[in-house]
Amino acid sequence: MATSGTEQDTRGVPLREALRRTTMIESLRLRTSLAINVTIASETFQHTGSFKFRAAYNLARTVPNDLLITASSGNFGQALAYAATMLSKRSIIVMPDNSAQVKVAAVREFGGIVEMVTTTVKSRAARVRELADEHPDAYVASAYDDPLVIEGNATLGVELAAYDFDVITVPIGGGGLSSGLIKGLRGAGSKTRVVGVEPAIANDAARSLKSGAIEVNSAEPQTIADGVRTVSVGKHNWAILKDELHSIIEVSEDNIKDATRKLMWLANLKAEPTGGVALAALLANPDMFTGQNVCCIVSGGNVDPEVLKEILG
Amino acid sequence: MATSGTEQDTRGVPLREALRRTTMIESLRLRTSLAINVTIASETFQHTGSFKFRAAYNLARTVPNDLLITASSGNFGQALAYAATMLSKRSIIVMPDNSAQVKVAAVREFGGIVEMVTTTVKSRAARVRELADEHPDAYVASAYDDPLVIEGNATLGVELAAYDFDVITVPIGGGGLSSGLIKGLRGAGSKTRVVGVEPAIANDAARSLKSGAIEVNSAEPQTIADGVRTVSVGKHNWAILKDELHSIIEVSEDNIKDATRKLMWLANLKAEPTGGVALAALLANPDMFTGQNVCCIVSGGNVDPEVLKEILG
Repeated sequence: MATSGTEQDTRGVPLREALRRTTMIESLRLRTSLAINVTIASETFQHTGSFKFRAAYNLARTVPNDLLITASSGNFGQALAYAATMLSKRSIIVMPDNSAQVKVAAVREFGGIVEMVTTTVKSRAARVRELADEHPDAYVASAYDDPLVIEGNATLGVELAAYDFDVITVPIGGGGLSSGLIKGLRGAGSKTRVVGVEPAIANDAARSLKSGAIEVNSAEPQTIADGVRTVSVGKHNWAILKDELHSIIEVSEDNIKDATRKLMWLANLKAEPTGGVALAALLANPDMFTGQNVCCIVSGGNVDPEVLKEILG
Repeated sequence: MATSGTEQDTRGVPLREALRRTTMIESLRLRTSLAINVTIASETFQHTGSFKFRAAYNLARTVPNDLLITASSGNFGQALAYAATMLSKRSIIVMPDNSAQVKVAAVREFGGIVEMVTTTVKSRAARVRELADEHPDAYVASAYDDPLVIEGNATLGVELAAYDFDVITVPIGGGGLSSGLIKGLRGAGSKTRVVGVEPAIANDAARSLKSGAIEVNSAEPQTIADGVRTVSVGKHNWAILKDELHSIIEVSEDNIKDATRKLMWLANLKAEPTGGVALAALLANPDMFTGQNVCCIVSGGNVDPEVLKEILG
């Protein structure tokens, strides 16, 4: 497996050119409803429908390996598959064999090779290790715990540094987006506060911030926000978050669903539940944001039709 | 009632500054599904959630009148209400008393005075005439048949002229958007073909293009695309459309619903049914677009929750 680096390969167009800029959405009706001066930075129209493409492309372009392997049933798998395809590389995406068919189909549409694993028999991580042994020339990619991932996601921070926000709220799972956001903001000279947002039933990062060390959930928490079902933040992410994160707000599952509905009906924005997490902080703790210029990052829009319909009721 | 003009008033910020740029969306999954190189130009994140704000702001800013009156149960009412509010003017929006509560509430949120009319007793037009008599100083605004509306909507054509599209598809109701689009494109030197799209059950413009004169529906057609339920195109619009419109494609109600679903599930875009009309043309007549760079205009995103849920099934 290759180590990380930034000068190893220059295949494909540069990162900034490959990316789409985030979509800034100001909705008067959303602002009126919340009585908060909120702006949405939406990654739902990024390549493959989530911010994950920023990291995936940076990683796929930078490492010299022609084969990329990851375990992901979600947005990182789609993003890595497409990034590899754009760069004429190959990707193997390990997915549980009970993954939603639409997600499997999406990875294949983006050019990835899907490797199914029966998770009751073998863990995804174990299958990834097997594949890495079979393909010693491959790069095994983490969706968050990698400097190349943080560097890719930092592009969003650079974009948002150009605005005059007092505070940005961002969902925290493994910490890839939040740590990258902070790196990008600070690199561009911005002092905007970054507030992490976690489902209360997946609050390992909040506990970590209190204890001062990485805390780990005993199992993958079953929040509706499936993009933040990680057992802990990554080490590379924690190194940034522990010093630079202003605070973490815990939100209920109802807050997340309500935020997802508000985005849909008041801002015309289709978000996945994880995409509603950052806005949910304004519902859970409005006093913290009153009178501030607030930006909420909507991390992605790829939601199973049945899940979205259930949220819309 | 004042006549139209462009040099009468300079209140408020200029049109180009007041507007949000259209949102360009490229979805690989949508392109793969259609086998057409399609790009979406979405007006769903424009102020008030539809392209109508372009016209409403231009009109409200240009006329000297401090009071604006229109009949609209849809997007133009919301747009005019908000444009008037931005310019410290007043607006009266005449709405049928059986309008959806969410639409009435939206007009009020944007600062409009809602004037209900029982349409079984009195037509909306008759109520507007009464109000115009009561307020001789008011400007009575048409949603489409006014040079100021066309000029406002032309800003979208100017934006799209910067891209290299072979053809742009656009919904046709009263013809305000399509005529404005053409005016903007041609003014900016673009020769991009403009193809109108109409629900087959509301095909007055298609019939007009064939006969060479404005044809009128006997009643407001009950298409699910409620933004194009007009009985005919306007005279000012027709003057542009009759010479510059490439053709009109008629689409079924099923095409419209299918297009709205594809925008949602393949491009993460929440559109109202009228917003799905332009894409529906690619479903109804794919051969016409194969091998072309096609842009479909999604005119707006404000859909009643119940209607959207029914479309999503």
